[in-house]
Amino acid sequence: MSEVHGVTVGEYLAQRLAAVGVKHIFGIPGDYVLGLMDVFLENSLQIIGTCNELNAGYAADAYARLNGVGAVCVTYDVGGLSLLNAVVGAYAELVPLIVISGAPHTSQRHHHLLMHHTTGDYKLQHAIFSNVTVAAVTISNPSQAAAQIDSAIAACLRYKRPVYIEVPADMVHQPCMPLVSIDIPDIPTSNSHALKEAVEEAVSLLSVAERPVIFAGIEFHRFNIESKLSRLLERSGYPIATTILGKSIISEMHPQFIGNYAGALSRDYVRQRVEEADCILCLGALMSDMNLGGFTAHLDENKLINANSDKVRIKYHHYSPVCLGDFVDALTVKLQHKPYESLDIKPASSLLSASFTPEPERKISNIRFYERMNHFLADNSIAIAETGDALVATIDLVMHSNNDFIAQAFYTSIGYATPACLGAALASPDRRVVAFIGDGAFQMTCQEISTIIRYGLNPIIFLINNDGYTVERVIHEGPYNDIQPWKYHRLAEVFGDSWSCEVRTEGELEIALDKALANSDRLSFIEVHLDRMDCCQGLVRLGKALSAMDGL
Amino acid sequence: MSEVHGVTVGEYLAQRLAAVGVKHIFGIPGDYVLGLMDVFLENSLQIIGTCNELNAGYAADAYARLNGVGAVCVTYDVGGLSLLNAVVGAYAELVPLIVISGAPHTSQRHHHLLMHHTTGDYKLQHAIFSNVTVAAVTISNPSQAAAQIDSAIAACLRYKRPVYIEVPADMVHQPCMPLVSIDIPDIPTSNSHALKEAVEEAVSLLSVAERPVIFAGIEFHRFNIESKLSRLLERSGYPIATTILGKSIISEMHPQFIGNYAGALSRDYVRQRVEEADCILCLGALMSDMNLGGFTAHLDENKLINANSDKVRIKYHHYSPVCLGDFVDALTVKLQHKPYESLDIKPASSLLSASFTPEPERKISNIRFYERMNHFLADNSIAIAETGDALVATIDLVMHSNNDFIAQAFYTSIGYATPACLGAALASPDRRVVAFIGDGAFQMTCQEISTIIRYGLNPIIFLINNDGYTVERVIHEGPYNDIQPWKYHRLAEVFGDSWSCEVRTEGELEIALDKALANSDRLSFIEVHLDRMDCCQGLVRLGKALSAMDGL
Repeated sequence: MSEVHGVTVGEYLAQRLAAVGVKHIFGIPGDYVLGLMDVFLENSLQIIGTCNELNAGYAADAYARLNGVGAVCVTYDVGGLSLLNAVVGAYAELVPLIVISGAPHTSQRHHHLLMHHTTGDYKLQHAIFSNVTVAAVTISNPSQAAAQIDSAIAACLRYKRPVYIEVPADMVHQPCMPLVSIDIPDIPTSNSHALKEAVEEAVSLLSVAERPVIFAGIEFHRFNIESKLSRLLERSGYPIATTILGKSIISEMHPQFIGNYAGALSRDYVRQRVEEADCILCLGALMSDMNLGGFTAHLDENKLINANSDKVRIKYHHYSPVCLGDFVDALTVKLQHKPYESLDIKPASSLLSASFTPEPERKISNIRFYERMNHFLADNSIAIAETGDALVATIDLVMHSNNDFIAQAFYTSIGYATPACLGAALASPDRRVVAFIGDGAFQMTCQEISTIIRYGLNPIIFLINNDGYTVERVIHEGPYNDIQPWKYHRLAEVFGDSWSCEVRTEGELEIALDKALANSDRLSFIEVHLDRMDCCQGLVRLGKALSAMDGL
Repeated sequence: MSEVHGVTVGEYLAQRLAAVGVKHIFGIPGDYVLGLMDVFLENSLQIIGTCNELNAGYAADAYARLNGVGAVCVTYDVGGLSLLNAVVGAYAELVPLIVISGAPHTSQRHHHLLMHHTTGDYKLQHAIFSNVTVAAVTISNPSQAAAQIDSAIAACLRYKRPVYIEVPADMVHQPCMPLVSIDIPDIPTSNSHALKEAVEEAVSLLSVAERPVIFAGIEFHRFNIESKLSRLLERSGYPIATTILGKSIISEMHPQFIGNYAGALSRDYVRQRVEEADCILCLGALMSDMNLGGFTAHLDENKLINANSDKVRIKYHHYSPVCLGDFVDALTVKLQHKPYESLDIKPASSLLSASFTPEPERKISNIRFYERMNHFLADNSIAIAETGDALVATIDLVMHSNNDFIAQAFYTSIGYATPACLGAALASPDRRVVAFIGDGAFQMTCQEISTIIRYGLNPIIFLINNDGYTVERVIHEGPYNDIQPWKYHRLAEVFGDSWSCEVRTEGELEIALDKALANSDRLSFIEVHLDRMDCCQGLVRLGKALSAMDGL
């Protein structure tokens, strides 16, 4: 401890986490990580104790989506391996998540002792996480700790994907030589020739197009270049659709925004406008089955210009390295503006122009519930949709300028949304979370309601009770799609102070919405009863599409 | 489908599972596994739908401990990776668990499509599971499916550890050529010379010992050779202690059974009797830190004969291959019987001779609660202890002849016990499960109470509410050991029909016990309030031992 700089490994890690913007660390205590947690607390990081590790991972993922980076801290094996699925989801969806795991003392490892929480194989957890992260380090030599920590954090920020840092218990208090700055590798620079040629080809295709469209995705959000997209829209005048995963990368009140496109899931106009475009400028989108509506999307390769974070593909050839931001900037300079009237643009915001009049005695239906929600979502909301019917139904919810939309729209692990409410509410305390969660998914991770209550957070959660895995029933019905019918609205009171209710009619829903708004200082939990097969139209189409693909 | 035998891959797998004794498969439906689940149902396998995959894994683990083999079936990545920690626990503790995962269609895999529930890497899950199983197969060619399935199941039964079988959705209905019989590799045969020499050396040491003791562990249960141990006891007359993990491998009412030995965790007499023996015959025990009381055990290597499933170690040399069963059989033939009086045997059953008189107004204490439980556990019970205080406290619960004891006493993943109640109750419907579960652990996996109710099972669950992670408080206190205080006894009514209550005094406990016995057809859930630091004495000692090892 007599080092010049007087910093220990644990302190260095804590300082680096704070430096990149981590304020809250989600996790569960356990033997090999208690000392490290003490150091985090002493260094003004807040530890958010969740009910289990998988939930900590989901919460940290949502936190990272809003905050730009998130962290989770658990103990070895029993903790880390319970968390794995959340980390794989973050990997799939480009979420910058720092996974920190305690581990047995280095001498225990060297002697291959059969320590509790382990199998006796002290390379196992590192090996597994190295498959699902962009950097995995185990601190075994304090003199290298600073460089290891910095390289892992830098990779997380550079690639916007999870990294893994394993800290054996005896390393925490070892002195460590701090580095001056985190050396974050640049996004690869575009090759200027490739960039120029790609832009010229793209411009030549777009300049003759009469009905061009932009189809944009999540990379604008993750690489923090949404403003480039806004300038491109302004300059070109083109209409824009976004993927489901990319929902909310621009304000959906924008006059050129026409909706979320996902093949057969989309509204008819959106599908036609995208698929019948004579040139599709596809930017920063993951070409996943969900984003493409179960591959029901028809995006003609001959009309497609497809740019991702580091390359551009036009028809059947590609330019690399060409960065998405550079490509968008260059297009913005070169493209001619097309007049609005010539482009057949029906803004999604027009969905809001139809007023909604509740019919008090009317049983709530899926379609009318989400129509009502379009008028309920305030300017300053974070919308969260659980995988399943809710995810598909929210395609046509319109995100206002300061709204964020969060869902696992590619990896689609059910159970994500409840812990995500916790993470999102902590990351953005000034905005209110409004979540739509199906009953089957809720059963997976329900206990995180308790943590939301514990920390005094105020999300509004709509628990959509349609008596089972409705999304699966649509795809393929069987007895395994049934679940135990809970009295969902009575769960929150078991966990602590909150407000909850159940609603069956539009009149009851209106009363509940008023109360939820009035209860702005705590959780509002509203169980909405829908008929078992009353799913959104998009889901009906998706089910047919997946069944047709024999993907069961 | 025009094969001679007319069996599909799915049907073959279903038939093989049934042939080795699987009746219930725990799991969660999901896109890529629905077709396979249909086949299981058509072939009279029951699918037990849990609330999430980790819980399915824990339930299947407990089922396997009682049934000899268990199975869990989930979908790809989001399912399988959520389950991983339970599989690693089964691997660590020698539990024969068959993990079955659906997977995307082989053509989707070949084209590297970004399918939902995946990262686009279709080798990921297989690669991860190959680290934590004794066999991992992916069915990609129907003509090899039967051999792959049989080899995996055989490895599970041979090594008593998990195996992994991945079935892409399009393989389920492919015709497959069935094999005649599962070719389970033998336990390696002992080398007859090594066996003879090992037995001679052991006998020469034991024959001059005046205070020998047997210290036996879990391998007798897993390899189904408890009867060999019984014969050795009868022949030799020696006292026997067992590990915590090996608890209940013999009836703890046996006159030679002195207790569970785990270093500083043990009762004083048991510790002295084992550590002061002049020869310790250690048989089939895992030398884990928990089994050795946080390595506080003092087992002098110079007095130790240590036999495991395939080798014998005496002092600092070993004999291999020598099988545990062969070694025990040969010792049984050769050993002289020692008279009971000469061996200083205080049977654990004497703990039951002290009567327990409830004092109705007295607040329940940890020590008196477990004293009461020793008189409550009936002949036909399955005791389950959650990791934490409950696990340590139950060391001195005496298991009757037909009692089984289940706990994750080596891997010690908290949250195991609640789903384990589900699995155990299904595996042994004629016996009643009695479980001891701490509040912190319960929060991890609480929703499986719902599944217990759903399937009409009747465990008696004692929820030990001591306001947080008491086991961690003892080791190292910090704010992370606090949890949200739930109204635990009111949770079950949210999930469905059950009986629950909370008790604070011995009088209330007596009333609750009577009601639980009367409610023999459904879940009884009893929340027992204990003071926050009122832990068992064994835990106090363990905490000191772990702190002293700096294992934080």
